[in-house]
Amino acid sequence: MIKFVSYEFDKGISFGALKGDIIIDLSDIAQSLKDVLIRGPLDRLIDIVESRSEGIDLNKVIFHQVIPNASRVICVGKNYKDHAIEMGGNIPKNINLFIRTSQSLVGHKQSLIKSRVSSHYDYEGELALIIGKGGRHISEKDAIKHIAGYSCFLDGSMRDFQNHSITAGKNFDSSGSFGPWLLPSTYITDPQDLKIITRVNGNIVQRSSTKNMIFSIKKIIEYVSSFTFLNPGDVISTGTPDGVGYAHTPPLWLKDGDLVEVEIEKVGILSNYIKTEM
Amino acid sequence: MIKFVSYEFDKGISFGALKGDIIIDLSDIAQSLKDVLIRGPLDRLIDIVESRSEGIDLNKVIFHQVIPNASRVICVGKNYKDHAIEMGGNIPKNINLFIRTSQSLVGHKQSLIKSRVSSHYDYEGELALIIGKGGRHISEKDAIKHIAGYSCFLDGSMRDFQNHSITAGKNFDSSGSFGPWLLPSTYITDPQDLKIITRVNGNIVQRSSTKNMIFSIKKIIEYVSSFTFLNPGDVISTGTPDGVGYAHTPPLWLKDGDLVEVEIEKVGILSNYIKTEM
Repeated sequence: MIKFVSYEFDKGISFGALKGDIIIDLSDIAQSLKDVLIRGPLDRLIDIVESRSEGIDLNKVIFHQVIPNASRVICVGKNYKDHAIEMGGNIPKNINLFIRTSQSLVGHKQSLIKSRVSSHYDYEGELALIIGKGGRHISEKDAIKHIAGYSCFLDGSMRDFQNHSITAGKNFDSSGSFGPWLLPSTYITDPQDLKIITRVNGNIVQRSSTKNMIFSIKKIIEYVSSFTFLNPGDVISTGTPDGVGYAHTPPLWLKDGDLVEVEIEKVGILSNYIKTEM
Repeated sequence: MIKFVSYEFDKGISFGALKGDIIIDLSDIAQSLKDVLIRGPLDRLIDIVESRSEGIDLNKVIFHQVIPNASRVICVGKNYKDHAIEMGGNIPKNINLFIRTSQSLVGHKQSLIKSRVSSHYDYEGELALIIGKGGRHISEKDAIKHIAGYSCFLDGSMRDFQNHSITAGKNFDSSGSFGPWLLPSTYITDPQDLKIITRVNGNIVQRSSTKNMIFSIKKIIEYVSSFTFLNPGDVISTGTPDGVGYAHTPPLWLKDGDLVEVEIEKVGILSNYIKTEM
């Protein structure tokens, strides 16, 4: 099973393929994972990866977010029934979108930053998809063909600022995470049948399945592409199930030193510690 | 008075300074207007611009949006009292933000696209600012120093999709406009005292002053920089006054062939025709 990672070793941000515990650098092929996606399907890299044996130990690199130069990270709000209810709202009749900027995201194992100006820092574990083949007005039927791969996503949220606007609450610098890697879509038979778990300091706080989404991945791609051309490297995160900190009694806000993990069946485990803003 | 433009002539997207009707190309200084802003204040270019006499006729170029490669275009919703009321809501107590991607914007005189999937295309004329000096936790007192310049902004909105989410309604491809140029902030004594007018086919539909903003430009910069480091080239659009098409009886939706103009005192006139999506 080959996964794709954006990482830093000794010469700035690069990208490569992960075989076991070894990263095969692919920076001679293109400048970034996004650029590779723009040029064509990931399948064509398999032979190149197989032909290379020298690599870098996975434990020696710094992970970056999967697509560090993503043009758009589009997120779906309230896409699991039990989460919509725990947030005190109704079950949405339409897809509800917001945007996170890349500046709000970090990679696997990088520190998540708890801001000085908010004390209501919440976790939301999600499945993200990365667009491979671009398109506009994509039908549900064709949607899956446009996905290059999947990743875990932590949609970290400042609930007090979210009361002002969802955009503010979701765009604190380094408050969310996206990784560890892109798992090519060819390895996932049914993206609507994956277990998803979030843990805080080892305790399970969210446990669901992607089968519980209100709007399916196919439907989301159809909807978003009705108003914008989806480009290779665009990212869509598909919403979080119930169990967020806001809904706990008392609320479970993230604090300095906490470990947050988002685990998605087959995809992997995204793991980050919280650090307070200096 | 020197203004800065992103434009296309014979060798792709470039940028330059506008002196009268002549554009002095500055692509030897940096790759883009955003890159120039990253490297330092615009003032330092004045001598270079003054020393050059050869240029391109303004009427021979294609204008692009002022910062075509903006990392973020952050918009303020409902920031004029009369507009908040005409939209059927209350006067906001907090700053309300959303994000437009660059893909949703065009430059001066480029076609705005009326989508096939929405028939509720509305105009919103606004004053935008472009960040020059980066910063986090900027105080109101220091805010103006962080502005490189101002521009007109048309925050084109699909009201039916806006009912699903503000992000969807504001992010139709090529539905908004940002230009014609960056007017350096040194030419504007008080950005809270500028007349702002929107015209559709020559008829005035919005007429107000930036003094009517609920949250001042200083306040907006303080707020946004409380949660994210504002970088050179980041764009903030400051909201629209009353008179939008939605509030007309019957509603005044934009249609194929309409001309929309946003005029801001001292800053300029941003002008675009509407074309239906193919």
